[in-house]
Amino acid sequence: MEVYMDNSATTRTFPEVAELMTRIMCEDYGNSSSMHSKGVQAEQYIRYAKETLARILKVNEKEIYFTSGGTESDNLALIGCALANNRRGNHLITTKIEHPAILQTMQHLEQQGFRVTYLPVDESGRVRLEDLHRAMTPETILVSIMHTNNEIGALQPIAEAGALIKRMNPNTLFHVDAVQGFGKARIYPKKMNIDLMSVSGHKIHGPKGVGFLYVGEKVKIHPIAFGGGQQGNLRSGTENVPGIAGLAKAAEILYRNFDQEMERLWECKRRFMEGVRKIDNVVINGLLPGAPDGAGTAPHIVSVSFRGVRSEVLLHTLEEKNVYVSAGSACSSHKPQPSATLKAIGVDKDLLDSTIRFSFSVFTTPEEVDVCLQVLYDKIPMLRKYSRH
Amino acid sequence: MEVYMDNSATTRTFPEVAELMTRIMCEDYGNSSSMHSKGVQAEQYIRYAKETLARILKVNEKEIYFTSGGTESDNLALIGCALANNRRGNHLITTKIEHPAILQTMQHLEQQGFRVTYLPVDESGRVRLEDLHRAMTPETILVSIMHTNNEIGALQPIAEAGALIKRMNPNTLFHVDAVQGFGKARIYPKKMNIDLMSVSGHKIHGPKGVGFLYVGEKVKIHPIAFGGGQQGNLRSGTENVPGIAGLAKAAEILYRNFDQEMERLWECKRRFMEGVRKIDNVVINGLLPGAPDGAGTAPHIVSVSFRGVRSEVLLHTLEEKNVYVSAGSACSSHKPQPSATLKAIGVDKDLLDSTIRFSFSVFTTPEEVDVCLQVLYDKIPMLRKYSRH
Repeated sequence: MEVYMDNSATTRTFPEVAELMTRIMCEDYGNSSSMHSKGVQAEQYIRYAKETLARILKVNEKEIYFTSGGTESDNLALIGCALANNRRGNHLITTKIEHPAILQTMQHLEQQGFRVTYLPVDESGRVRLEDLHRAMTPETILVSIMHTNNEIGALQPIAEAGALIKRMNPNTLFHVDAVQGFGKARIYPKKMNIDLMSVSGHKIHGPKGVGFLYVGEKVKIHPIAFGGGQQGNLRSGTENVPGIAGLAKAAEILYRNFDQEMERLWECKRRFMEGVRKIDNVVINGLLPGAPDGAGTAPHIVSVSFRGVRSEVLLHTLEEKNVYVSAGSACSSHKPQPSATLKAIGVDKDLLDSTIRFSFSVFTTPEEVDVCLQVLYDKIPMLRKYSRH
Repeated sequence: MEVYMDNSATTRTFPEVAELMTRIMCEDYGNSSSMHSKGVQAEQYIRYAKETLARILKVNEKEIYFTSGGTESDNLALIGCALANNRRGNHLITTKIEHPAILQTMQHLEQQGFRVTYLPVDESGRVRLEDLHRAMTPETILVSIMHTNNEIGALQPIAEAGALIKRMNPNTLFHVDAVQGFGKARIYPKKMNIDLMSVSGHKIHGPKGVGFLYVGEKVKIHPIAFGGGQQGNLRSGTENVPGIAGLAKAAEILYRNFDQEMERLWECKRRFMEGVRKIDNVVINGLLPGAPDGAGTAPHIVSVSFRGVRSEVLLHTLEEKNVYVSAGSACSSHKPQPSATLKAIGVDKDLLDSTIRFSFSVFTTPEEVDVCLQVLYDKIPMLRKYSRH
């Protein structure tokens, strides 16, 4: 039995998505900019995608811009808004636990003369609203806060942050990196005062190489690449029609029986947390105070520190039994560094390198959870014995 | 019978490509940055792609960087090199008949303080080497010339231009937009002094939303987007494994029986040109002087002006008979403007709006060519009659 628990790195594509993409690639393969009916047909797939996503988010279709994925969405949001709004100020705010697509882009903007405040987080990985309040200045043109942390599953107070930002300065833009949140939470940009939001296809059982950026219609934003002027000139390049339709199809499937799917995810998460606590000397990271059941965190991520066990060793031990997990996140391309997120929430120094991320999906079953737990029960004592010598 | 003759806009994906992508999406769906074997498996697909493409181009695997398509490849090449080399000079050279992904990016760089020379072309759409020679200055950091023009199929003297550039200034980088050329010509960057080369998947029966940029190992180039540091930090973002493998598979198929496939394309092109000449008052654009058979042009593109017929009307007339063609190129997103390429080669003003691009692929058959010709024979006289009134 294969037990894939690395769904925050990437997910298995829904078969319906792959089928739809194959049909588009091999039959309805037109270029949406072509004037003939094969182009019109391609455009209809894009319209289907925009309608589907706009309905889920309760936004306008024309506020959806397709990109090559989460990284491009984040870059477009930050650089595009910084350039378009630099007359209003040069200050940006984000957090210390963002994805590298945000943190590295912020560093790039610092080199371009922008000033960036990196907010700390509390022990559960949440930004404190008073810190955000204190950081806001009249020169703050954009605040970027992730919806769901990719390493520990912490949920940020997005709606509260959105309200605070707009109360302090209605012109300050609010960007949310929802790459880990979309598909696992109901997110309504208009209600939450979100001006821009990044989403990736392959985290929600859709294809790799595609994502979108929600851009509220009043947002001033510049393109960061140039060409044929597709997508209202904000994002040039032939539309990835199969990818776009596939992304929308995946979202449609996930949000069709959303409450049910989330309940199934929660069952797995609770079952796993209960089971893992039977091992001594483990810490589940990122829980809210007084909520050992994980309430207030993401339904699909559990970060566990196993004292006395090196995470890389445990990862490969699990792998031998066909259980796939992650040490840290997979997003930083083979650079095993101490996790900035774990450090920011104050994880013990000697646990930083003993932490594993288990991340579930709608494909995860209670049986898989039990298989994973059994491997942990069998192996942890042995690994600890070795590491003592 | 459906006759798709808009292959320069986009192509039908090879079924083998779609099958491979489905397998990767639904079974071998790992993130290539993951440390477990599902990540390693994903990485192997990327290695397969790099090996395949490097073999075809006779370059090193590590000189292949995957992108979201031709537009991103062009942007990365131009902006990335301009930023990395601006201490050596601020002058760039390109031609007047490039794709918007080049022309619009050059305009962006002009706004950033770079100086750009746009070379004219002769009546067949070719750059004159003496013009290039004259334009080169000690401050010229990059020359960008497309391999195959997307509207008329003109082939540029790439090898000669490469030799000239390096002779005049070995430090000047040479970028080639080979989006229309790759898959239809044997292109060897090392031999032709090409430092950077852009390729797109969906023009060669591969997937949309993926492409690559060849970057010679000595080239100084900066990233234009920031994140997890994938692909040697030049192009961050989770690799689009199915797209990357699909692109390589398409290239593999095309170059497997390359000479045969090209001969079949040429048969269609010659058959079509012969047939279309039976209509009076037509001009085939972009032919070399003394080569009415199309020698020295691309094997898959024929640009024809039909005097007295509006191209949009002809396009839709053909469409009614399930023949799909293009008026101009599809790359400029529903903005029917007089074509810069047709103007640059001196097409009569009253023919600019009477020009149709027929573009073939390895799927095109002689029977399809005959169907298309028959529709033209049947309809052109009638359309001309109407347009006179």
